[in-house]
Amino acid sequence: MDTNIFKKFSDIKPVEMSPGYMAQLIHTGANTLNFLEVKAGAVSAIHTHIHHQCAFVLEGQFELTVNGEAQILDANTFAIIPPNIPHGGRAITDCKLLDIFNPIREDLRELQKKQS
Amino acid sequence: MDTNIFKKFSDIKPVEMSPGYMAQLIHTGANTLNFLEVKAGAVSAIHTHIHHQCAFVLEGQFELTVNGEAQILDANTFAIIPPNIPHGGRAITDCKLLDIFNPIREDLRELQKKQS
Repeated sequence: MDTNIFKKFSDIKPVEMSPGYMAQLIHTGANTLNFLEVKAGAVSAIHTHIHHQCAFVLEGQFELTVNGEAQILDANTFAIIPPNIPHGGRAITDCKLLDIFNPIREDLRELQKKQS
Repeated sequence: MDTNIFKKFSDIKPVEMSPGYMAQLIHTGANTLNFLEVKAGAVSAIHTHIHHQCAFVLEGQFELTVNGEAQILDANTFAIIPPNIPHGGRAITDCKLLDIFNPIREDLRELQKKQS
């Protein structure tokens, strides 16, 4: 187990979640934090999961669709997505996103293991 | 209760946690997310809390001291601070920080109420 307090992003191997979505994942005791770099035009198909999700756009513009309602998000806006609500999106520009999931996304931890 | 999914940062009133530390707080079901704007030179005195904390520097440079060890963090680095570990810091430049706490910081929720 990694007990170091100070960390570098360069030590986290990116995983490709879907075409154009490169993810750097951090799993804490309670949450999964996902720092994503997304290529302009890349699409995340509508999906659901049991996890509560907070979705932030750190740089660029991302069109997020939640429960059929689409909005273009940027660094001034964000979304709080309750569990089991269908959502997906599309990068308007190259962008950097941060998604915070609770509880931990064990499915993404498995994806990391497969791609490592 | 606010059940809107899409949110604006401009709707979150900043609170001054300590001189030079302006916080925009988001409380979810499980976590408190704190987006901070910090003035160069502003100091956060060494303190502890029961909450697990992930500390990110979104812009600028921040010197974080954890358990007596100091490191200058920027957007390429971060820190995972276990519960009850003494920590504090100092902004090297004007900077934007994101702290993620688990569980919710009820003390900061109270501070928000007092300053609202």
